[in-house]
Amino acid sequence: MDFPVSAQVKAGRLTDGGRLWSDLMTMAEIGALPNGGCCRLALTDEDRQARDLFVRWCREAGCEVRIDPFGNIFATRPARSRDAAHVLVGSHLDTQPHGGRFDGVLGVLAGLETVRALNEAGIETEHAVTVVNWTNEEGVRFAPGLTGSSGFVGAIRAYDTSAVTGVGGVPFYPELHRIGYAGSSRLTDRIAGYYELHIEQGPVLERAGVSIGLVEGVQGVRWLSIALNGEDRHAGTTPARDRRDAFMAAARLAVDMRRAALALDENFRITFGRIGVEPGSVNTVPGRVTMTADLRHSDVGFLDRIEQEFEAAVAALRDSEGVDGVVTRMMDVAPVRFDPAMQETIAAAASELGIAARRLPSGAMHDASNLATVAPSAMIFVPSRGGISHNESEWTDPAQIADGCEVLARAVLSHATGAVASNSR
Amino acid sequence: MDFPVSAQVKAGRLTDGGRLWSDLMTMAEIGALPNGGCCRLALTDEDRQARDLFVRWCREAGCEVRIDPFGNIFATRPARSRDAAHVLVGSHLDTQPHGGRFDGVLGVLAGLETVRALNEAGIETEHAVTVVNWTNEEGVRFAPGLTGSSGFVGAIRAYDTSAVTGVGGVPFYPELHRIGYAGSSRLTDRIAGYYELHIEQGPVLERAGVSIGLVEGVQGVRWLSIALNGEDRHAGTTPARDRRDAFMAAARLAVDMRRAALALDENFRITFGRIGVEPGSVNTVPGRVTMTADLRHSDVGFLDRIEQEFEAAVAALRDSEGVDGVVTRMMDVAPVRFDPAMQETIAAAASELGIAARRLPSGAMHDASNLATVAPSAMIFVPSRGGISHNESEWTDPAQIADGCEVLARAVLSHATGAVASNSR
Repeated sequence: MDFPVSAQVKAGRLTDGGRLWSDLMTMAEIGALPNGGCCRLALTDEDRQARDLFVRWCREAGCEVRIDPFGNIFATRPARSRDAAHVLVGSHLDTQPHGGRFDGVLGVLAGLETVRALNEAGIETEHAVTVVNWTNEEGVRFAPGLTGSSGFVGAIRAYDTSAVTGVGGVPFYPELHRIGYAGSSRLTDRIAGYYELHIEQGPVLERAGVSIGLVEGVQGVRWLSIALNGEDRHAGTTPARDRRDAFMAAARLAVDMRRAALALDENFRITFGRIGVEPGSVNTVPGRVTMTADLRHSDVGFLDRIEQEFEAAVAALRDSEGVDGVVTRMMDVAPVRFDPAMQETIAAAASELGIAARRLPSGAMHDASNLATVAPSAMIFVPSRGGISHNESEWTDPAQIADGCEVLARAVLSHATGAVASNSR
Repeated sequence: MDFPVSAQVKAGRLTDGGRLWSDLMTMAEIGALPNGGCCRLALTDEDRQARDLFVRWCREAGCEVRIDPFGNIFATRPARSRDAAHVLVGSHLDTQPHGGRFDGVLGVLAGLETVRALNEAGIETEHAVTVVNWTNEEGVRFAPGLTGSSGFVGAIRAYDTSAVTGVGGVPFYPELHRIGYAGSSRLTDRIAGYYELHIEQGPVLERAGVSIGLVEGVQGVRWLSIALNGEDRHAGTTPARDRRDAFMAAARLAVDMRRAALALDENFRITFGRIGVEPGSVNTVPGRVTMTADLRHSDVGFLDRIEQEFEAAVAALRDSEGVDGVVTRMMDVAPVRFDPAMQETIAAAASELGIAARRLPSGAMHDASNLATVAPSAMIFVPSRGGISHNESEWTDPAQIADGCEVLARAVLSHATGAVASNSR
């Protein structure tokens, strides 16, 4: 492969932020929603159109494109030698039903912009640079999400239909085949590192007035299901002391456990998202409540401690409210620590460019959480206006997009030239 | 009409508790459920069978039977003179879907037993004694409940199809016609008083070890609807201080308002029976909650005060939780005070018999709440085992049933002989 000779650096930069912005806006036309957002659910016709456009752009940039059995797309800019390791860079093109223009797609198209920039700068690298689009990160049509990256790291097996459920009954593999992205070409080369640029989806960077987030890791996530059993009673005839009111028990539990979690660390995330109250009659004391708790923290010890406090608080409801409860762990994802050397590389790139950066954990899970289990991995965040995501009004300013992409490209370039001593595993 | 001559008093009593018990068990075979309860929803075939049996028994006891446009059944034991006032005694034969053997039916059949007892004692009275079965007290198939007594007192008009809604779409008047109880014979005579014997449906009498409840009145009922609006946010990325969590606001409101209500009076009844949480996703901070509050107290001033505290507490959620709320009053039923002279008559009857009695309010609404708006009215309670009602396991001991009926009959007899100076209105 011949690289273009025009090694013009844009105002001292490798990447062209305007071109990336234009690509983002072009991609946003696929599945466009009335209020500026996008709906490109995984394996729909819109997802196929987005994939087709991405593949065309990658081929135009001289990449070799491979599709694996999970529909993951790998677009490789070759290294000096054929048997080189790969620096992976990417994210996902699928969106939420009322998604924005940046969640996921930014990381994929910034990877492509990085390849174009390396091409234009005429730079050869020790490692191949491979841009990747992971299938069904969002998990809207098929559960669980992070499907493509889970498959890539071996957490789920290909063609195991029990591992991916079609929400609403549409099965995964036939849909993958239908849109023409059921491949068989696995990327089996060694992974030197994985980079993912993503919007923060939270308010920390915006509030701090900082353009680059150095992501230290991903918070651990623990989901609890809490079943509370009291007794249905007549709202008019039953005195307070005779009640076994499952909703009052739930309310008290929520108030007490939020207080406990935030007392432990004000950065603790605790959310009661799904609450069912039975029998659901205005004039009946509710006898049964089921509720979920979503707990997140970077320190697994803190998660353990709050889970134990949940057990104790629910047990105490027997005496205080006459309500029996059971706490069940529904899901447990360990916290992820990203590669320190790669974080340093990213910090150095931001510093060179004079762009303010700060370290923070990721509150959300990303494909990088999976990649970190098999290869040195890192993430870069750019600000989200108002911290809003999974929403049509999701927004990041063009200058912040350009800064994020440039930092990404410089880190990828350092890594691909062998300058990063990451912890290979 | 000739009264039977055999004026034998059963062990010093007017009424035959064994006969009443037998009638209750016979009636319970209509719509019998597997665990001992009954399902006789208003205007079903089971309701028709129950009405047919009741009418047959009333005619066998020498009563003249009238059906009014609401399907209310009036079975009259005549007075000495044709134009006399009536002492009404009754309740309802319809049940909840998983109802018991006593709720409602006790008051109707104890009225019939009173008539039989007067017959057997050969007693003529100044006032007629009329046993009544009110239509659709429970309000399961048709809303609102208390339909028959509401119609009788003029709170709803006959044939106004907008006043009674068929829950599930089945209309009231065609069903009433179908079962053969669409009458046109209104009871227009003066009402000297209305007596209703009912199970307590609460635990107060059982706990006090007392067989007779002298019901002072019916608690006022106020229903509030509370809408809380926060913002849907990502459970992982949104720090506590950036959240506008509508469920946490609801939980805090419930805990605080219960505390406030019980601090005002430990007899206050406060119930949050229906709670909807949106969007209802495990990993999304809930942006919207709608909930109901059922407030009951005998003192309307206490209801006013707690409603005002609700308004204040919801307004305060704007600062404390970032959640905006609106409180709407859905229903307001004023407290009812029963006739003091009739309460004294009942107390005297219990005292004569050496039966322990205590005064208490009714937590539930009854047909007597309606009757009290047009005529001197009173209720007598007997204990409910475990305070349980609207449940197949609803139970009252035969001896307590017999005591309740005897007290009822003596009070009705006193009133019908003109010995009660109730506040006619």
